[in-house]
Amino acid sequence: MDKVITVSREFGSGGRELGVKLAEKLDIPFYDKELISMAADDINIAEEAFQNYDEHIVIHDPLDRQYYHAFSDIYKVPMSDQIFVAQSNVIRRLAAHGPCVIVGRCADMILDDSINLFIYSKMRDRIKRMLILEPGSDEKEMERRIREVDRKRKEYYQYYTGNTWGRAQNYHLCLDSGLTGVDGCLRAVLAYLGELSE
Amino acid sequence: MDKVITVSREFGSGGRELGVKLAEKLDIPFYDKELISMAADDINIAEEAFQNYDEHIVIHDPLDRQYYHAFSDIYKVPMSDQIFVAQSNVIRRLAAHGPCVIVGRCADMILDDSINLFIYSKMRDRIKRMLILEPGSDEKEMERRIREVDRKRKEYYQYYTGNTWGRAQNYHLCLDSGLTGVDGCLRAVLAYLGELSE
Repeated sequence: MDKVITVSREFGSGGRELGVKLAEKLDIPFYDKELISMAADDINIAEEAFQNYDEHIVIHDPLDRQYYHAFSDIYKVPMSDQIFVAQSNVIRRLAAHGPCVIVGRCADMILDDSINLFIYSKMRDRIKRMLILEPGSDEKEMERRIREVDRKRKEYYQYYTGNTWGRAQNYHLCLDSGLTGVDGCLRAVLAYLGELSE
Repeated sequence: MDKVITVSREFGSGGRELGVKLAEKLDIPFYDKELISMAADDINIAEEAFQNYDEHIVIHDPLDRQYYHAFSDIYKVPMSDQIFVAQSNVIRRLAAHGPCVIVGRCADMILDDSINLFIYSKMRDRIKRMLILEPGSDEKEMERRIREVDRKRKEYYQYYTGNTWGRAQNYHLCLDSGLTGVDGCLRAVLAYLGELSE
């Protein structure tokens, strides 16, 4: 495996867990929220500001100056766009450094030569999974949260890539984790990738 | 494996070959064009008529009597819809009989409890594959044919199911055969299914 693997995922489908396990199996680095700190360092603004904009788009009033970073004062580039550019630069730098697993943040579209996975599962399976991870949560509230995070991810992906989130042909392998669990998906991915090294 | 496996596929991606190999590996029957003959027998019309309507929709002028089968004269059900219903009945009957692999014909949406695969690959990979299977063919003409068949399959799927062809979440596993070939996809599917029998 000499390629970067990107993982796009529906919220609650276990995409992050799959990414972590895949990176372990392949003995390569895993990047998720770490990308935020690295990108924050890059353009020298508070990590907290990054967290607010991570994986969702914010359309500001162009006259409202406080949302624009001083650096781009002339061009009035919104903070969310600057953060996307900074994260993209970090993603390209990591990819140039060697194989790794990157979860989310449109890495599949930012990189030219990555292997792209998409993980999803039915709403009932995702609620079940999240209620195990966060016992005591309210089921209805969890469903609302899942829909909200997915909506933001979808908008973010479509805004920055112009592509349809979840269209199979955008990815090399798309897996429903509801049927076989994250471990079933992991085996399928390894079997699929196995061919590459033969 | 006690389930029916359905294979949806982009033309030229090797979906049929994957279906055949999968059925062999799992030692279960494979159905593709055989469905046509069975459905033709069912409603007692010529197989040739079925071939014309297989996996594409035809919208006729409702006043043009020759396109309507005598059986449905009162309700004026177009031939293409009658054929879809006949094929659906055959698909349900086969599924009730035991596990098998069914390629195309919206079987994924007709059955409630099947495992659904979608196979695709980039246009350049599909042209390359088809030119190996049909040596001497013109490349541009092959691309035109691939786009034409895909367009018909997509329309057929969307007309009869109301769903988006190629939307990852409609399937359990979606595989790009361009990266690892049909054999790489086969191993991935077997690894994915393997979990089910554990």
